[in-house]
Amino acid sequence: MHELRKDILLGRWIAVLSDSKSPSEYELPSCSNGTDSNCSLCPGREHETPHEITSLKIDATSPNSWWVRVIPSFKPVFQIEGDLGRKGVGIYDRMNNIGANEIIIESPEHNKRPEDIGLEQMIRVLTVYRDRIADLNKDPRLRYILIYKNSGKEAGEIFSHPVSYLMATPVIPKKVKDELDNAKQYYNYKERCVFCDVMREELRVGDRIVLETKDFVSFCPYTAEFPFESWIIPKKHSCAFYEITQEEIEDMGFVLMTMLRKLRAIFKELPFNYYIHTAPNMVPRRDHWHTLGEDFHWHLEIIPRLTRMSGFELGSGFYILPTSPENAAKYLREVG
Amino acid sequence: MHELRKDILLGRWIAVLSDSKSPSEYELPSCSNGTDSNCSLCPGREHETPHEITSLKIDATSPNSWWVRVIPSFKPVFQIEGDLGRKGVGIYDRMNNIGANEIIIESPEHNKRPEDIGLEQMIRVLTVYRDRIADLNKDPRLRYILIYKNSGKEAGEIFSHPVSYLMATPVIPKKVKDELDNAKQYYNYKERCVFCDVMREELRVGDRIVLETKDFVSFCPYTAEFPFESWIIPKKHSCAFYEITQEEIEDMGFVLMTMLRKLRAIFKELPFNYYIHTAPNMVPRRDHWHTLGEDFHWHLEIIPRLTRMSGFELGSGFYILPTSPENAAKYLREVG
Repeated sequence: MHELRKDILLGRWIAVLSDSKSPSEYELPSCSNGTDSNCSLCPGREHETPHEITSLKIDATSPNSWWVRVIPSFKPVFQIEGDLGRKGVGIYDRMNNIGANEIIIESPEHNKRPEDIGLEQMIRVLTVYRDRIADLNKDPRLRYILIYKNSGKEAGEIFSHPVSYLMATPVIPKKVKDELDNAKQYYNYKERCVFCDVMREELRVGDRIVLETKDFVSFCPYTAEFPFESWIIPKKHSCAFYEITQEEIEDMGFVLMTMLRKLRAIFKELPFNYYIHTAPNMVPRRDHWHTLGEDFHWHLEIIPRLTRMSGFELGSGFYILPTSPENAAKYLREVG
Repeated sequence: MHELRKDILLGRWIAVLSDSKSPSEYELPSCSNGTDSNCSLCPGREHETPHEITSLKIDATSPNSWWVRVIPSFKPVFQIEGDLGRKGVGIYDRMNNIGANEIIIESPEHNKRPEDIGLEQMIRVLTVYRDRIADLNKDPRLRYILIYKNSGKEAGEIFSHPVSYLMATPVIPKKVKDELDNAKQYYNYKERCVFCDVMREELRVGDRIVLETKDFVSFCPYTAEFPFESWIIPKKHSCAFYEITQEEIEDMGFVLMTMLRKLRAIFKELPFNYYIHTAPNMVPRRDHWHTLGEDFHWHLEIIPRLTRMSGFELGSGFYILPTSPENAAKYLREVG
């Protein structure tokens, strides 16, 4: 059984896999692209995947006629069965790898880039994101649900079939915890949501805005970690992504597709990630973040993988941005 | 002038460069290796580099006869002149890029891998690390000095001539701050240094230890971020690297060289980083971390670059370790 371990210094948790890789199993970075003649994620090969969790059917009577399909990971890091089993090991702390690890197959079509799946299909994918989070949100052992995408090998892509992932963890991950803590601190001081304030400031200044629709704003944040990083945020204050309405999903689908197309128009074969930061799951005990939901605001972050981390970033957590967010936003606004 | 910006959410600072790169200036990841026929870091070409900061001379009368040479960065992110200029910009906060950006040329010989420079030379390099930190430690505008190395293109290597870097920043970087804060919290609770406790625990358990000498221990941490990550830590409690004695430097040189050789024996062309985490600079105002120095303990972290970050790590700050530290330590102990 894999296990989770708490970092005594940084306060965060990591997962240690039990079936330890030997040194020769590592693929050192190379430019070779995997072949995809043998894709288990394509329609008609559903029996080759783990048991389906849910799907959006085209034809409800046919098992291989679907728009979007959700399956457990082939090699899950987290598992849904069991208890947390928190305990000490010497001076350290551990717990079991309770959680979930799902693959969201974004299209029946193999080899589609996410910006090419079409608006209708993008809306279906976002709808599945919402429904999966809403479902797992009920499990009191799970503290956080992260939806993310890896596009391009440099961004961690494994399948050439278009997929995104869901990871549910029994702790609030460090980066999200930092966002929540700082948002809470800001709220305590100002009695306003920091994300609402950021959005108002961005709309007032305007030079980092890329796109504004009825319900959403996309912009390059003042303190992006990576060049051309962009956020999509709902105008209406809402802490949890699963509260999104169908009408908002349609608007968001348009914004996300447009942003990905803009990025591709600038950088042809861009590896990128995106992920949704939403409020943590409710827990039976008192939860400072979730009782009111006034101090967090869900959003989606798009991370182009243009730079490599060096010893400086790894050692410091301090990021150097070679393009200003203002210039990045200008390129993104102006491209067709 | 470049500027630093405070992340309103994560509490950390980033640097934004003023001479913004255009999209076409990015080199997307590829396998091509740069040529090195034209190296300005080689002896005899000292006039092509920025003005020398210091050097360890072989022959004091000759400008191009040196063991180790320190120069400012060709394109510095931080600059030593000026004041901090902290101010608000709308709802955000900024300050000037005060700091230092130095290149430590580790050998007159081009194309040497760090594990091949020899023990004597490694000791000279560590001596220069210590002296540069001791020198910059006196500047009250600088809060932190990070020494780090990028070996291999995937790890951020730019020069094929062997170098390490020094970055001095006017804030304590996020990752270091987290370590300091957590170490302080532990100290407040236990009245013991967390690093001393970790080292004792590791020596007691033994299965993550790689090497033990008179003054140092090297081990794979219980919660490594990356597979085969290894730390080198002095047995004697000491918060600041610049307090290291000459005798300890000799022992540390042996340990660092041995660790790098072991890693290369396992992974032939391994990209890796290492960096030193030491106490922040003293400041005129009261500084909780530095007044006593009982709650921090300097150490060096070696990070092999075997894995890529995916949207999961970027979105969560949660790391997945495909080889356990216990197994990594076993491989490292057993290899010649």
